[in-house]
Amino acid sequence: MVHDIRIVTEAELRRAVTMDLDTVEVVERAFAALATGGVSMPPTLSMPFAGGEGAVDVETALIDGLQSYAVKILSGLRDTPDLRRPGRDGLVVQFSAETGAVEAVFLDNGYLTDLRTAAAGAVAARYLAPEDVTTAGVIGAGPQASLQIKAARLVRSFERVLVYGRNPHNAAACAADLAASLDVEVEVTTDPEVLVKRSQLVVTATSEQAPVLKAAWLHKELHVTAVGTDQLNRNEIEAAGLVRADLYVCDRVDQCATAGELRAAREAGLFTDEAPPELGDIVTGRRPGRRSPAEITICDLAGTGAQDTAIAAHAADLISETGTVIRA
Amino acid sequence: MVHDIRIVTEAELRRAVTMDLDTVEVVERAFAALATGGVSMPPTLSMPFAGGEGAVDVETALIDGLQSYAVKILSGLRDTPDLRRPGRDGLVVQFSAETGAVEAVFLDNGYLTDLRTAAAGAVAARYLAPEDVTTAGVIGAGPQASLQIKAARLVRSFERVLVYGRNPHNAAACAADLAASLDVEVEVTTDPEVLVKRSQLVVTATSEQAPVLKAAWLHKELHVTAVGTDQLNRNEIEAAGLVRADLYVCDRVDQCATAGELRAAREAGLFTDEAPPELGDIVTGRRPGRRSPAEITICDLAGTGAQDTAIAAHAADLISETGTVIRA
Repeated sequence: MVHDIRIVTEAELRRAVTMDLDTVEVVERAFAALATGGVSMPPTLSMPFAGGEGAVDVETALIDGLQSYAVKILSGLRDTPDLRRPGRDGLVVQFSAETGAVEAVFLDNGYLTDLRTAAAGAVAARYLAPEDVTTAGVIGAGPQASLQIKAARLVRSFERVLVYGRNPHNAAACAADLAASLDVEVEVTTDPEVLVKRSQLVVTATSEQAPVLKAAWLHKELHVTAVGTDQLNRNEIEAAGLVRADLYVCDRVDQCATAGELRAAREAGLFTDEAPPELGDIVTGRRPGRRSPAEITICDLAGTGAQDTAIAAHAADLISETGTVIRA
Repeated sequence: MVHDIRIVTEAELRRAVTMDLDTVEVVERAFAALATGGVSMPPTLSMPFAGGEGAVDVETALIDGLQSYAVKILSGLRDTPDLRRPGRDGLVVQFSAETGAVEAVFLDNGYLTDLRTAAAGAVAARYLAPEDVTTAGVIGAGPQASLQIKAARLVRSFERVLVYGRNPHNAAACAADLAASLDVEVEVTTDPEVLVKRSQLVVTATSEQAPVLKAAWLHKELHVTAVGTDQLNRNEIEAAGLVRADLYVCDRVDQCATAGELRAAREAGLFTDEAPPELGDIVTGRRPGRRSPAEITICDLAGTGAQDTAIAAHAADLISETGTVIRA
């Protein structure tokens, strides 16, 4: 049936939807819905490109109570040597949950994915990081690394940020961006071990397939969020580290077992008989989060379609009359 | 990265892309590519809506040699009582196979799916139907039923069409549409058994979950294509009929085992140890098609992402400068 469809560009979305506490709340509610059974979410559709150079991933979910649902498509090269070039493209399509009609197409080039992923990092930090974080560290220096620190700052008032990136140019650019955006002191370090040891909150946001964070570096009063960057075979934390932690949490166990740290851990024979708690369990109080300042906690974020549906509905609320309406 | 994306409406697509022999060839080549290993195609992502009233289905495939690939999303109610209301909505997104960038969004409301499905019916008829078809019958009276007969007429020059629909109003409308479009005599019948017995080519295009075509009705010199209408639990042909046929062909075995006649057949204990040949095997001569005029042949079309990628590339070639370009 012919109806109006709103087409919204990345630039329009960036003006309307930002990394703020509202965005964090929206994603936190999506995790709560996942825990309380209010979400229908199929496994991610993933099709690798020839030669393993990239892939297309499709995620979707229905969330009870939301008037819309989203189908998110990310497409492109996974691992670009030059991190300034976004290694992906994509869009988010929003449908009416009542009629199934297409309502909006967000030509976001992955922006909404960046936001919902960083917002999940903030939810993890809110429930799992020590209350007192004076130093936050980030391993990885791409756009997601920077956004994770900005999101974490919404829930923890650290005064210093340490940045480690394999490429010194990218690390410097990431540090400059953070120094300009946040009222914090920013240091670039060439030693990830030092970064971890000095921090109370660490985010890994790399496309590494071999651990960048060793189990031996973990220390009391530390929370680590592993977020990766669209790398199916990513492995950022040494599997032994997940066991050494007092608490290891997945955003969604089946997603992490496919595309998160849990995959490598299970290949190493760990967590084969037990399912770690999910972030939604912590958010809703079904399972305990951090129990003392001294604990080591780790959160594994592989990404969920529920976040995509939630951020798209949030974007639709905020864009209002923005964009181009096409009758089709 | 900011780039131009072409947005094309259903009306614009209907003007540019029609049910003609070029469309049949494009889909036939997709089946050939499936058979020769030139396609990467993940299983369909399917998410049912609450209460089983509808679903969203996502299909995609990479075809060697094509510069683009498509992700097709169909969304909406599966089984609407009023067939004049399309029971679905959706769009097709076209990406560069080289860079992964979004190139076009076809706001087609399922039109390209209708075309590629009908074109597959024509491919099946071309290779499997008797050379001499004087009467073609269609069970079902929705838009896909009509389009299947138009497509079949491109490859077989029948002079009479029989239409059976559960809803007499829809059957009359379908018959009128066919009489106006094709130089054929069209009769509406209220008895599907008579329809099958009088026809050499039959298409079933219903959303039935209990067989509308009985095994006992099958006769010499007959080809049947079962196409269904987006019904995951559809079952149009009595399972015993698949065994009674001299040749039973799937568009894609794994798709038919999930969403085609093969699903019900396997539940009935048939075809559990053997995989039927695929349409691409017949098209490329890897497996024999019809061997004599007397044979009974059946083709089960559940739909493949390869068809979506092929029809989208074809549409992109034909639309040229049509549509609205948005820089995003």
